[in-house]
Amino acid sequence: MKTLTKPLITAAAALTLSAGIAAADHHADRTKIEAVLSNYETALNASDVDSVMRLYADDGVFMPQHSAPNVGNEAVRAAYDGVFQAIALDIEFTVDEVQQVSPDWAFARTRSKGFVTINATGDKGPEANQELFVFQKQDNGNWKIARYIFSTTNPPRQ
Amino acid sequence: MKTLTKPLITAAAALTLSAGIAAADHHADRTKIEAVLSNYETALNASDVDSVMRLYADDGVFMPQHSAPNVGNEAVRAAYDGVFQAIALDIEFTVDEVQQVSPDWAFARTRSKGFVTINATGDKGPEANQELFVFQKQDNGNWKIARYIFSTTNPPRQ
Repeated sequence: MKTLTKPLITAAAALTLSAGIAAADHHADRTKIEAVLSNYETALNASDVDSVMRLYADDGVFMPQHSAPNVGNEAVRAAYDGVFQAIALDIEFTVDEVQQVSPDWAFARTRSKGFVTINATGDKGPEANQELFVFQKQDNGNWKIARYIFSTTNPPRQ
Repeated sequence: MKTLTKPLITAAAALTLSAGIAAADHHADRTKIEAVLSNYETALNASDVDSVMRLYADDGVFMPQHSAPNVGNEAVRAAYDGVFQAIALDIEFTVDEVQQVSPDWAFARTRSKGFVTINATGDKGPEANQELFVFQKQDNGNWKIARYIFSTTNPPRQ
């Protein structure tokens, strides 16, 4: 029995260890994804295009309201330039869920709420949106925004 | 050599076969996901809530503009009931991408264009949106809509 039992115990120990490592990886990935969301909130509130761009994958897609999808680095940057020229945000994100669906892919569902100021007029009003993010893990282990779309949760303007 | 070579060839053949099966699975999954998108277009244009609901996962989330996220079967159904009471759609989807990111998860990015009729008034106008879908494969092999958000690509109303 001894010769059979020992490898079995070793295999079981290896499996437990492997599951432990996987769980730790998963936890580390989740922490990194949540950091991207938090950094995105900070960058938005600072109207900081460079910081936003550091959070996007090179082939990322930004799908803001009232605009066709912006595909890839250059288009995404131009879109945020336009947004930050037009408005200033003071918002806070609530993370409804983060789901990692494979070693390299995850999605998150959030809501954001606060105020928007129209730069041209100084007019300030309430802002509330819902967001869906798709994240992709990069070769260096960083998670980046691969796809991002939001829509207002405020009632339609009359 | 013979005893070594034969198992190697068998292993190589098994790997090739396995890769072939994986590719075929992937193709079958993609076809199923595209069918969900096509059926969704049909159901929207028919204002058919039951058909829409058959395309959603039980814990699916529908995030329409001007509404908080609708989480789970009952809330999703109520939201579509509201949409179809208010408007009738005549739109066509363009699929920009379908990406399967794991055996059970995929996302798709689409645009839709056409006309919307306000049921209460009969007023008809142009409609254009962009969409992000997250799909999850169910235990029975069917793909369903797990998360769905859209936003208008038309300019803001003046």
